[in-house]
Amino acid sequence: MTIKIYGVPISTCTARATACLYEKGVDFELVPVNFFGGEHKQPAFLSKNPFGQIPALEDGDLTLFESRAITAYVAEKFKETGTDLIRHNNLKEAALVKVWIQVESQSFDPAITPIVLEYVLAPIKGKTADQAVIDANLVKLEKVLDVYESRLSSTKYLAGDFYSLADLHHYPYTHYFMTTPWASLVNDRPHVKAWWEDISSRPSYKKMAEAITSG
Amino acid sequence: MTIKIYGVPISTCTARATACLYEKGVDFELVPVNFFGGEHKQPAFLSKNPFGQIPALEDGDLTLFESRAITAYVAEKFKETGTDLIRHNNLKEAALVKVWIQVESQSFDPAITPIVLEYVLAPIKGKTADQAVIDANLVKLEKVLDVYESRLSSTKYLAGDFYSLADLHHYPYTHYFMTTPWASLVNDRPHVKAWWEDISSRPSYKKMAEAITSG
Repeated sequence: MTIKIYGVPISTCTARATACLYEKGVDFELVPVNFFGGEHKQPAFLSKNPFGQIPALEDGDLTLFESRAITAYVAEKFKETGTDLIRHNNLKEAALVKVWIQVESQSFDPAITPIVLEYVLAPIKGKTADQAVIDANLVKLEKVLDVYESRLSSTKYLAGDFYSLADLHHYPYTHYFMTTPWASLVNDRPHVKAWWEDISSRPSYKKMAEAITSG
Repeated sequence: MTIKIYGVPISTCTARATACLYEKGVDFELVPVNFFGGEHKQPAFLSKNPFGQIPALEDGDLTLFESRAITAYVAEKFKETGTDLIRHNNLKEAALVKVWIQVESQSFDPAITPIVLEYVLAPIKGKTADQAVIDANLVKLEKVLDVYESRLSSTKYLAGDFYSLADLHHYPYTHYFMTTPWASLVNDRPHVKAWWEDISSRPSYKKMAEAITSG
């Protein structure tokens, strides 16, 4: 049975889930949700995710939501296929993947998300971007990227010298962020820049970016 | 070698990590960090966690940070001991644990944390609690708890009819929240109330609560 992803290609969280499926080479069907029409707040979708947020995954009789839980499920189910994103045969490396997955979720994401939402999404909604919100979060993001710069000067990827789910989780928001006037925050930090150039050259990233553009 | 947790018993994130160790029956040494003296921002601690946040874990030559990564490591390393907190032999149940771990992290925590920080921590720091912040987050928390009420009317625990890491992660902030004037948000929802009474009667919760009180 084909895995179904309910979502929208331009959505960052949908993109995180599909990027993982691309990385693992797993076929899936993207079932479009009429996001701007509010379909994700209607009963049919709420039965898949009671919080009314995209994406959701269906795999046979299993329904999941939360993009980072979806990627973790895909990485676990297909752990023997393609890149091992969770280092399932090495307890210590697996633990470091978990640490940097949390860093993305708890430190990187809360800083970069408001910047992308204000700069990219506000104009789409006919609103003016709130520069004060952007500025405050640029300060936070710089501090996070300073830690990344130090980390990536000793390991090639975030969790170690191996690409993992922790790196992949950075794809969607950084993709949008690199279109903003503040892409220099990445490009001015040599190790962060090299890391981003490396991971954004992977086929899984390119497929995700293409889906965002054509979506 | 004994696992070391660097932290402070009254810290919610330290408490999340130690609760998991209590639940698994794993001995550990709590190494106090002089939090109010800023020890977590000094080089010795920053070498354990470059973000300067407690707790950190040391297990032999492995150093971890981020409380939810620490609990996941402990649950994985000791998966054959005591309660299986991650349902490691059941891919679907394990996936649902991951979903509700994400719900705690992405929806529950961002709502309850500002309430607890304002009500409990602001007075300790000699500040006045910001009621507007509390009110805005009470609205968010109610919406999250409405979803929990519905979920817990069909399953005994969040991920299914089994206690898991997803439930345990709720311990520390809910512990403090139940001392606020808004504990009724939990107590007025019968299934949430029954769930909380159940999980807060576990020995791991009681040991954590005792450590917070005596800390």
